[in-house]
Amino acid sequence: MPGGGSAAAVMGAMGAALVSMVCRLTIGRKGYEAVDAELRAVLDEAEAWRARLSDMVRADVEAYDAVLAAYRLPKDTAEQAVARTDAVQAALHGATEVPMACARGSAAVVVLARRAAEKGNRTAAGDAGAGALAALAALRASALNVHANAARMTDRVYASAALAELEVLLADAALRVEELWQLLTARA
Amino acid sequence: MPGGGSAAAVMGAMGAALVSMVCRLTIGRKGYEAVDAELRAVLDEAEAWRARLSDMVRADVEAYDAVLAAYRLPKDTAEQAVARTDAVQAALHGATEVPMACARGSAAVVVLARRAAEKGNRTAAGDAGAGALAALAALRASALNVHANAARMTDRVYASAALAELEVLLADAALRVEELWQLLTARA
Repeated sequence: MPGGGSAAAVMGAMGAALVSMVCRLTIGRKGYEAVDAELRAVLDEAEAWRARLSDMVRADVEAYDAVLAAYRLPKDTAEQAVARTDAVQAALHGATEVPMACARGSAAVVVLARRAAEKGNRTAAGDAGAGALAALAALRASALNVHANAARMTDRVYASAALAELEVLLADAALRVEELWQLLTARA
Repeated sequence: MPGGGSAAAVMGAMGAALVSMVCRLTIGRKGYEAVDAELRAVLDEAEAWRARLSDMVRADVEAYDAVLAAYRLPKDTAEQAVARTDAVQAALHGATEVPMACARGSAAVVVLARRAAEKGNRTAAGDAGAGALAALAALRASALNVHANAARMTDRVYASAALAELEVLLADAALRVEELWQLLTARA
């Protein structure tokens, strides 16, 4: 069932799409000649992340299905039980890599959204802000998925490293979005 | 062009859909008899908000188109200029009511997501958390839209009241999501 992990990937892709829109509303426009090259680069990066994050919607469903399939393996004999435990742990590993990739991509989209909001077409700054908020929600929802899986993983080194990486991504993205929020709401 | 306002409505509807999913994974399940009636009520409310927020995707596009149409009215004579100003202000009013409705609905979804996360199927608590994060992002993105419109409105009484209402919705939703985040990430 497509759950929070897929929803996270959708939000990340939507954030990237909003960044792309703001870039397209800026590139080639009068008064924005000085930022034209930069916003073309932002557009290219945003489109690349949009494609990757869109692919993660299905990847998350598949990774989750693999976990369910592993849990359904027989455990009637001691050998089966060991094989099942190994399969579950391998599947959990795969099901954690997808939200980790989604978290990294969403964090990148937050950075791109800030640049689009600050340098792009001023009338569309709020759309870039919405993109940043969508990407931050994607990052945080991905983090919840990682946390849920990490609790069931026996490889504590991998789980701890993943959670530590998330802490850095979350803190950085939250700060960038907060600063952008102040900027955008101070105008009214 | 569907921008941040429509994206906000999509995120709000997605948050409601995740709440519904968690309710459906709980209702009728063994071990959850005590919360069955409550989660049936949460499901009904979540589905109602999902339908309303989905409708707002198109409503936001239409309201934004009305603003653009008003700005395109002729202003060659003094009479035309006055009529255009009135039309722009009326359109801005309409274009602010949609994100205000989206903000209220998204705030309601945050409340429902908390209940689903705390009382629903424990294996799906993270999905309810993702729903809460999506709804909070929807509320914040709607607020950016209101801020952008409020800055152009001459009716300062209406604009101030809208912004004041948003402050309350935002503070309440942010607190609920923060508490839920602590709860869900402490488990790992």
